[in-house]
Amino acid sequence: MGSVTGSVDLAGCERLQYDYGPDRMPKNRPVLFTMWRYRELLPIPDGPVRYPVPIGGTPLLHAPALRHALRTPHLWLKDETRNPSASNKDRATALVIEDGLRHGLRTITTASTGNAAVSTAFGAAAAGMRAVIFVSTDCSPEKLALMTQAGAWVFQARGGYAAAVDLSRTAARTFGWLDRNTGVNPVTIEAKKTVAFEVWEQLGRRLPDVVIVPVGDGPTLVALEKGFAELVSCGLTTRQPRLIGVQADRCQPLVRAWLGEPVRPAELDPAATLAGGIAVVRPAIGDAVLDAVRRTGGGMVPVTDDAMLSAAAALAGRAGVGAEPAGAAALAGLEAAVERGLADRSETLALLVTGRELKASDATYDPRRVTVAESLDDVERALSSRRGTTSGFSCSA
Amino acid sequence: MGSVTGSVDLAGCERLQYDYGPDRMPKNRPVLFTMWRYRELLPIPDGPVRYPVPIGGTPLLHAPALRHALRTPHLWLKDETRNPSASNKDRATALVIEDGLRHGLRTITTASTGNAAVSTAFGAAAAGMRAVIFVSTDCSPEKLALMTQAGAWVFQARGGYAAAVDLSRTAARTFGWLDRNTGVNPVTIEAKKTVAFEVWEQLGRRLPDVVIVPVGDGPTLVALEKGFAELVSCGLTTRQPRLIGVQADRCQPLVRAWLGEPVRPAELDPAATLAGGIAVVRPAIGDAVLDAVRRTGGGMVPVTDDAMLSAAAALAGRAGVGAEPAGAAALAGLEAAVERGLADRSETLALLVTGRELKASDATYDPRRVTVAESLDDVERALSSRRGTTSGFSCSA
Repeated sequence: MGSVTGSVDLAGCERLQYDYGPDRMPKNRPVLFTMWRYRELLPIPDGPVRYPVPIGGTPLLHAPALRHALRTPHLWLKDETRNPSASNKDRATALVIEDGLRHGLRTITTASTGNAAVSTAFGAAAAGMRAVIFVSTDCSPEKLALMTQAGAWVFQARGGYAAAVDLSRTAARTFGWLDRNTGVNPVTIEAKKTVAFEVWEQLGRRLPDVVIVPVGDGPTLVALEKGFAELVSCGLTTRQPRLIGVQADRCQPLVRAWLGEPVRPAELDPAATLAGGIAVVRPAIGDAVLDAVRRTGGGMVPVTDDAMLSAAAALAGRAGVGAEPAGAAALAGLEAAVERGLADRSETLALLVTGRELKASDATYDPRRVTVAESLDDVERALSSRRGTTSGFSCSA
Repeated sequence: MGSVTGSVDLAGCERLQYDYGPDRMPKNRPVLFTMWRYRELLPIPDGPVRYPVPIGGTPLLHAPALRHALRTPHLWLKDETRNPSASNKDRATALVIEDGLRHGLRTITTASTGNAAVSTAFGAAAAGMRAVIFVSTDCSPEKLALMTQAGAWVFQARGGYAAAVDLSRTAARTFGWLDRNTGVNPVTIEAKKTVAFEVWEQLGRRLPDVVIVPVGDGPTLVALEKGFAELVSCGLTTRQPRLIGVQADRCQPLVRAWLGEPVRPAELDPAATLAGGIAVVRPAIGDAVLDAVRRTGGGMVPVTDDAMLSAAAALAGRAGVGAEPAGAAALAGLEAAVERGLADRSETLALLVTGRELKASDATYDPRRVTVAESLDDVERALSSRRGTTSGFSCSA
């Protein structure tokens, strides 16, 4: 312990004094806990990691006050908001960029409803890469401000998220850019599976009974299943935790598919929910989500916006964890899962808190970096017009 | 390295395969790097740490693209935005609460212009404590929303920040609450000095030549000086880095005092700068700041709002680090320090990035938790009126 020996006043400020000596400092070097710990099961060759920002190694919180309030004595929160852009998207961004740097690529692209775009913009900036982001025209000015502050070039696709994905993927193929699109690049799954490894290690090489996770396009859940399956393949455990996927009741295509029921139009309206991050009409890897849930003996549950806001308030007020509505969906889903008999309060329950909202230092976005686009020609024209300027570039990767 | 042996398609999703075996997982347990690493020089007794959220152990980034742009080959960013409420205030919050928990206290209070209030609200929630926060009436609704979301009780002091400090300190004395006020509780300095230990260790037990840091009330700079001085006292190093403090040119009492010049009214206007977090008319421990700067051979520099916004853009666009204007002040101050001959681009320069802005999941604050107050009677009346309700409490600690 710290042996305080007294205190002195120095220029009006009280300073505690100790018994000083060289042994007061730890002997071993501090090591950051990051996802690169799992290099042996990641698709990158030997050699130093080039991505210059530590990613992953997020805390697994035991949240005593929340446990008490919910009567869940073995609840754990995997706090992915502690990543640099405050979401679990940073894992995929980092591994995709690491891979790209090793292949000499200079430009990365993605389509996104929000967090993946912000993560890509900040991650590319850190790595000295250029980011070209495709969003739908209803992307909020605050999110745009975050992207342009980090120097990204943003295109608003008139045809919505699906059109943004098409444009981004076509641009990647045409110009040879690094493609970070969710569900397309298998490297994103590799990155996100490290959450499973971390939870297992943080529980002392034990598995939780249940893991609950928000589902939009699907990679977060599918990657968790792959991570736990790889622990089985490695002979380190014999079973997998049950995976429970959570969707917003206003956009729940995978819940209905799971139940084998037709989905009603009111249940496919992404604009009708606050949980933009998981409101996807046609999930990129929906079949893989259903397959992963089935193989682990889990389930899919819908939650209301009110339930997500209450969950966000409970995370903040009972665990000190800030989360956006989609980021708090797993906690909302816990109640739904208990009601449906998919989980029991006495089990070891791990909840992924996937993201929180950030603010840009300057509330307005840079309009020179944001263009409405309908075709790849629009993209090429906009970027070429900036060729030769200090901030512009040509489309070649 | 990860030896990918092939890939399979599973339900429409490409999955990479490896040569699996138990040796693919690290043998040692992962350890989070946190400020508790420095227990031997912290004023808490032996035994498990009670504060339930990891704090500190933030990355020291080498920011290659920013180094290149600034022609500062040995620049380092100490990224304090990676703390749970995205600022360095979390260190002080955690150690004060740890101390309070060990003394059986149930309520914590502070006055704040913003970040310390948000940090206290979230930290208290994590620890199951009640937070009573005093702000001035011009505190933004967004910051209030963050505080009330975490369940804090907020009082807006009509007399501004100085009145808020008075009320908070009086309430702490009268009701026996834990007093987290900046510059009052020496434990806050103890917590923030761990940044010095971390920088020294992260540089391989070497010191930077210069450390640049934003200055409002002063504890961050004073604590750094104490941390480096303790490394000298321990016999682990013989010198200290030069400390350079940065203030907004619209509120620069300590820069003028440092230069021995009178301060003009236009230089004492906290409302005139975007850098609210460092705009303090009467710094709580200003004399100690000047003393620390003098003893390390450093200096004090003013920066404009435009310079801070440019610095925030450079941090985002060249290093992938989001920062609010006050949080980016150290980078703005680097240019000013170089101009004045206080630092050289070729030196080993460590810049503290102290905070970034967060958003609450719900944009509006809970009005039941926010009260305008002029006296302690107002505080007691407001809190007592909630006695017996599930969310209210009496004033006893």
